[in-house]
Amino acid sequence: MFSTPLVAALALALPASAQAQASASIAAGRAQASALAPSEIVAAAPAADWVAIAPSDLLVMTLAPDAAGKPRQVVIQLMPPPFSQGWIDNIRKLAAAHWWDGTSINRVQDNYVVQWGDANAEEKAKAKALPEGLQKMPENAYVSTNGELTAELVKTMSKAQLRQLQESPQTTTTYQARSQVDGLLKSDAYAFRTLFNAGWPLAQGGGVPDSRVWPVHCYGMVGVGRDLSPDTGSGAEIYTVIGHAPRHLDRNIALVGRVIEGIEHLSSLPRGTLPLGFYDVAKGEQRVPIVSIRLATELPAADQPKFEYLATESASFARYADARANRRDPFFIVPAGGADICNIPVPVRRVTKP
Amino acid sequence: MFSTPLVAALALALPASAQAQASASIAAGRAQASALAPSEIVAAAPAADWVAIAPSDLLVMTLAPDAAGKPRQVVIQLMPPPFSQGWIDNIRKLAAAHWWDGTSINRVQDNYVVQWGDANAEEKAKAKALPEGLQKMPENAYVSTNGELTAELVKTMSKAQLRQLQESPQTTTTYQARSQVDGLLKSDAYAFRTLFNAGWPLAQGGGVPDSRVWPVHCYGMVGVGRDLSPDTGSGAEIYTVIGHAPRHLDRNIALVGRVIEGIEHLSSLPRGTLPLGFYDVAKGEQRVPIVSIRLATELPAADQPKFEYLATESASFARYADARANRRDPFFIVPAGGADICNIPVPVRRVTKP
Repeated sequence: MFSTPLVAALALALPASAQAQASASIAAGRAQASALAPSEIVAAAPAADWVAIAPSDLLVMTLAPDAAGKPRQVVIQLMPPPFSQGWIDNIRKLAAAHWWDGTSINRVQDNYVVQWGDANAEEKAKAKALPEGLQKMPENAYVSTNGELTAELVKTMSKAQLRQLQESPQTTTTYQARSQVDGLLKSDAYAFRTLFNAGWPLAQGGGVPDSRVWPVHCYGMVGVGRDLSPDTGSGAEIYTVIGHAPRHLDRNIALVGRVIEGIEHLSSLPRGTLPLGFYDVAKGEQRVPIVSIRLATELPAADQPKFEYLATESASFARYADARANRRDPFFIVPAGGADICNIPVPVRRVTKP
Repeated sequence: MFSTPLVAALALALPASAQAQASASIAAGRAQASALAPSEIVAAAPAADWVAIAPSDLLVMTLAPDAAGKPRQVVIQLMPPPFSQGWIDNIRKLAAAHWWDGTSINRVQDNYVVQWGDANAEEKAKAKALPEGLQKMPENAYVSTNGELTAELVKTMSKAQLRQLQESPQTTTTYQARSQVDGLLKSDAYAFRTLFNAGWPLAQGGGVPDSRVWPVHCYGMVGVGRDLSPDTGSGAEIYTVIGHAPRHLDRNIALVGRVIEGIEHLSSLPRGTLPLGFYDVAKGEQRVPIVSIRLATELPAADQPKFEYLATESASFARYADARANRRDPFFIVPAGGADICNIPVPVRRVTKP
């Protein structure tokens, strides 16, 4: 029954990262593109389909070593304009001030989030002072407006026009370089439509189509913790998603980026037992010390990590997304015929060549 | 800025389990039901809306204690008919034979699955012998057929009729007691429609409506690992989902249940570094020993855990699902207007009263 090698036996499905290593050579040898796994398509993508991530958009978080003394580093990619730039400016200032050094991971809630920052933030007398000059962002900056598709315009459109808009692979908007995989995404419970643009998962329009566009809470996305409205958070308290996409947070919190390496150092932490998953220090639960968080540009050149993402506008990404939605590699029997946007993670890889 | 108490400050959203404890009393005092959080609605649900889970449907997995010597127990609820009963019969036989005792957790892949069973399953010479009499299940048992809604019938329906069907809260089928929250679920990239029935998240129909119904891969769902098709797995190799719902596995693998307590003992394990997240024992990564897996009915009466779930056909569940899709509690600004089925986890609670 289990006569095949380890990797095939017991396999549930072929994961992207592991298989990319294992099957790059297989991919080239196969005749039919339709039989490739998503990771094989990614591995075979030409260099021109990859986009370098600027070191100025990378945050490097160094945690205290684990119990066995192993180093723990997490790399976060910050979002490009027009999204959440006020909070991201604050985060750059906080990193430049080395503000997070000596803070900690304070909250790990199963199937939800890991959160870090000042453990004493809620007690004014003990709270760590924030740097000068942080912006106070308004709630309307949780979404961005799309230049040409105004709410007024969509109100005048027929149902057929709206349908056409929803299925259209391209709109003439601020988001010119939108990917061409939207037909696969179908409709979504949280937005009029979802789309990829410039490497990021986005959504547009609430129950009805309109001009608002926002980033979505997929696994690994990074956001800004906040107090009750109208507070919007400074950027000092940060979380990342470690469970099923909590899309109900979309438009209610600022998303600023995503973890692109080392999320296992966060997702595998012990869960906190206080409400919301905060660590109960009185019961001996241990917050994880943050040694430092730095913009990669502040590191010595040799220590700056280099990453690139698969252009969401490339033909390779379109093939990859199609394969995520319609698995035809050997393990699968029934292709799904679609995928939700958070089940099409944008491929990101570390560049190791000099 | 952070003048509110710990639980409100830094809060991203109010989680079900933590808040249920904290705010049951608050719920009773509020005038407007529309302001209740999902967990408050659950906490206020009358006893009649809860359904006891039979001990014969519970598997209790005991892992070796953790590094600090703390016990680790995971409880799994098996699915009711008509789903996956052949595999579930096998699992009952494997548990009765104490087959898993001395096996291990062999695979932990980030944002995907934790898998356990015989670490040597792939090597015939070393593999642990399975009990006699296990059924070999056919692939067509990954789905069940709905008594009255045949594929032939739906082919004759108009678009308007199909729309009505999709939005209908009730159909006269095998799944009589379907919940009334389907309007909230809207459409889905993976199925013609999703629904709750008898406490479980289900989907029906592929790209087009038809009579096939199947359970869906939400966080915490438990399935049967298998080799390449036509193998369907015996039930000896088991996994649970610890990431964003991998819905592409729906209809490709048998789902047999869900973790209802202790998933943090699985989801917080170190990730394996071999392909697919298998532990690299040669590099010192440690498989987690399984002390035992027992049907609860085999345990002494005093040790049998008791659980109940919120009836998905109850008014309380309908209100809970509506609140999951339209958060109106104080933290939220913009209600989503919908939810995907995996973002409406069915509430389950341990019964501690005698």
